[in-house]
Amino acid sequence: MRMYDLIVKKKQGGELTKEEIDFMIQSYTRGDIPDYQMSAMTMAICFNGMNERETGDLTLSMRDSGDKVDLSNIDGIKVDKHSTGGVGDKTSIALLPLVSSVGVKLAKMSGRGLGHTGGTIDKLESIPGFKTEMSMDAFISQVNDIGMAIMGQTADLAPADKKLYALRDVTATVDQLSLIASSIMSKKLAAGADAIVLDVKSGSGAFMKNPEDAKALADTMVRIGKHAGKQCKAVITNMDEPLGRAVGNAIEVREAIDTLKGKGPDDFTQLVLALGSRMVVCAGKAKDLSEAEDMLKKAIADGSALEQLKRFIIAQGGDASCVDDTSILKLADNVLELKAQSDGYVSHIDCDEVGMCSLILGGGREKKTDTIDPSVGIYLYKKVGDKVCSGDTLAVLYYNDREKADAALSRLKAAYHTGSEKVSHGTLILGEVD
Amino acid sequence: MRMYDLIVKKKQGGELTKEEIDFMIQSYTRGDIPDYQMSAMTMAICFNGMNERETGDLTLSMRDSGDKVDLSNIDGIKVDKHSTGGVGDKTSIALLPLVSSVGVKLAKMSGRGLGHTGGTIDKLESIPGFKTEMSMDAFISQVNDIGMAIMGQTADLAPADKKLYALRDVTATVDQLSLIASSIMSKKLAAGADAIVLDVKSGSGAFMKNPEDAKALADTMVRIGKHAGKQCKAVITNMDEPLGRAVGNAIEVREAIDTLKGKGPDDFTQLVLALGSRMVVCAGKAKDLSEAEDMLKKAIADGSALEQLKRFIIAQGGDASCVDDTSILKLADNVLELKAQSDGYVSHIDCDEVGMCSLILGGGREKKTDTIDPSVGIYLYKKVGDKVCSGDTLAVLYYNDREKADAALSRLKAAYHTGSEKVSHGTLILGEVD
Repeated sequence: MRMYDLIVKKKQGGELTKEEIDFMIQSYTRGDIPDYQMSAMTMAICFNGMNERETGDLTLSMRDSGDKVDLSNIDGIKVDKHSTGGVGDKTSIALLPLVSSVGVKLAKMSGRGLGHTGGTIDKLESIPGFKTEMSMDAFISQVNDIGMAIMGQTADLAPADKKLYALRDVTATVDQLSLIASSIMSKKLAAGADAIVLDVKSGSGAFMKNPEDAKALADTMVRIGKHAGKQCKAVITNMDEPLGRAVGNAIEVREAIDTLKGKGPDDFTQLVLALGSRMVVCAGKAKDLSEAEDMLKKAIADGSALEQLKRFIIAQGGDASCVDDTSILKLADNVLELKAQSDGYVSHIDCDEVGMCSLILGGGREKKTDTIDPSVGIYLYKKVGDKVCSGDTLAVLYYNDREKADAALSRLKAAYHTGSEKVSHGTLILGEVD
Repeated sequence: MRMYDLIVKKKQGGELTKEEIDFMIQSYTRGDIPDYQMSAMTMAICFNGMNERETGDLTLSMRDSGDKVDLSNIDGIKVDKHSTGGVGDKTSIALLPLVSSVGVKLAKMSGRGLGHTGGTIDKLESIPGFKTEMSMDAFISQVNDIGMAIMGQTADLAPADKKLYALRDVTATVDQLSLIASSIMSKKLAAGADAIVLDVKSGSGAFMKNPEDAKALADTMVRIGKHAGKQCKAVITNMDEPLGRAVGNAIEVREAIDTLKGKGPDDFTQLVLALGSRMVVCAGKAKDLSEAEDMLKKAIADGSALEQLKRFIIAQGGDASCVDDTSILKLADNVLELKAQSDGYVSHIDCDEVGMCSLILGGGREKKTDTIDPSVGIYLYKKVGDKVCSGDTLAVLYYNDREKADAALSRLKAAYHTGSEKVSHGTLILGEVD
């Protein structure tokens, strides 16, 4: 078999067999196929696509290119979740303790990556003492002991995807549905759970800018999951404005804690319940979404979700007193306020721009070696549809560097749009794939 | 400027500016753009194409990537020719002495390359003593002295094309019209002539398998030539069966010599006159093709073309007595004959297969380091349309290795097709672009 012939086949619109895909992926991972052939292939895929079977086989081949997590020593149905990412997405921090508080087993691996804010791992490290590095044995034991664990990804999961993504990133071949879906799902499948619930974001602050594209990605990922013999569900959710009101690291953990106290923002609470109820159903702990949602609401109301969060923080070495006193999650001392210039209603917030403000303040990473300042961030007092009067505080920036803060403030100012007509904010749940 | 953005632009069907093309080509030649980005670009070009301006600018940028031959010290209009290659193509060896015998200045650089037989340079080296290595000064002087010279390409002409072609060759991006045309023309333009006559082959033995594709390539190349301010003409010629009767190296030189004696095969003679008359017109030595063809026929008839061939061989160190006694051009001692199995007419000869026989015998190169055996080859006694009787000799193989000869013979046998109906052989000149 020769890579050259596979490029010709795909260029001419042909369908690659499972054997051809395996040859391509495993040889590429070993370094036996050069980058320049693989980039010609990915560009040909951008034009001619891959069908459902090819996409499934590509995912399985990438899944099989490295380590696979073995969760068989944990009883019950293990459930994982994944979000395609957006601005203010602190979902896992509230969602996982909540879902595990009703008996669902969660063994989650999480990466750091690049972005406007840190990833889940980075955000959790805002909690004094919190550790995400642990051995695989300790990880499994913790899930058996308290029902959940989140560890930084140390295993060599789907190295083919890592190498291929790095190549796509510099050859303008990222935005192809089969390649996006297989990239995400190969890592999820290697992480070993029995069921996967996906949160596919749609909107100006997401990778997928409109609901149709998000739906297509969700469809593709769910089919891949089923092709791999897993339970898989996806929810398509709105990312036209930031999720919740907090954007940053420590500030987002605070909001997640508040949400488990029943005091979270409506949109974020709704998202947590939507994803959580699906996870509960996948785990066989409830017969339908309605029953599952009732269980979760009860776990918030009776404090058991909050207790589970404390148990989780303690198990991973953190100071659980931050749950009762969120001021332990330190925010930067310096604040700048963005004030409304006129009366009216917030009509639109440029979601990506709010993320950029967080990045400018030091809350995210542009390159892997950047360090994150957990204390900086943005709190949005006003969101789309809210009435504002001239002089009202729209948002507050927490900062440690005035120059960066000024740059972020002027950007945030430009991101806020107001008008005289009341605009209702968009629906949070735009669709689902089951 | 970033290559990434140029890939995105072309992927989305955009038009690259002259500045963008120059940035891309010059940076790639220097090694500042990696192969994996360039192969993504060439694949995007395969899908979205390049318009006439882009193709012209790509060619000029590749022309300008290295040395350019300066022919300004030669008086008059310097004319070059190029063939896209086929089986039995010994054209330059007869054509150039013929055309220069009527006063056209020819300073031709020629490569070796890969193929069923050697290139013009290799074929000429079948002549004892013949040298194609010389300094640029000697090359210019020889043209001024005797009107013509052919040297092996030593200058670093269009290194961008060399690097890009090598990449296209391993990434399945060779077969794109703009890329093919710019590759050929960048080298021709760097070689410094004022006018270029192109022989674009069409048929089973050519790169372009049908006249429509060959016409499109001819059109594109002629437009590039004019974009570069050169006179440029193309003839589209039939390569559905080998050109002439000889396929090999020494055996092809013999046929070229015979042709200048007026005893060449009809098709080859016709081709030489068609290309030659256009070169004569380009050089301003005749007012039209008819007058030019008459001049060339006269030069064959009165022996002046043959005299010019001798002068050329002597000037480049060769033994010119081979012109009068072609047996000096040694053929292999061993022969195998292919006999007709039945009565009828030759209906078709698989042209590429005849070329493969030459390669098997050792007459060509599969890889650059292969050495060529000038003495082996094939002589086709019967061509398409010829009547044959059972037992007639269809063709003869000259060989030095019996095992290879047996393999070549069985292949040649399969390449010959006969039928009971007389088939007329195809028209040689299929079209032209002016």
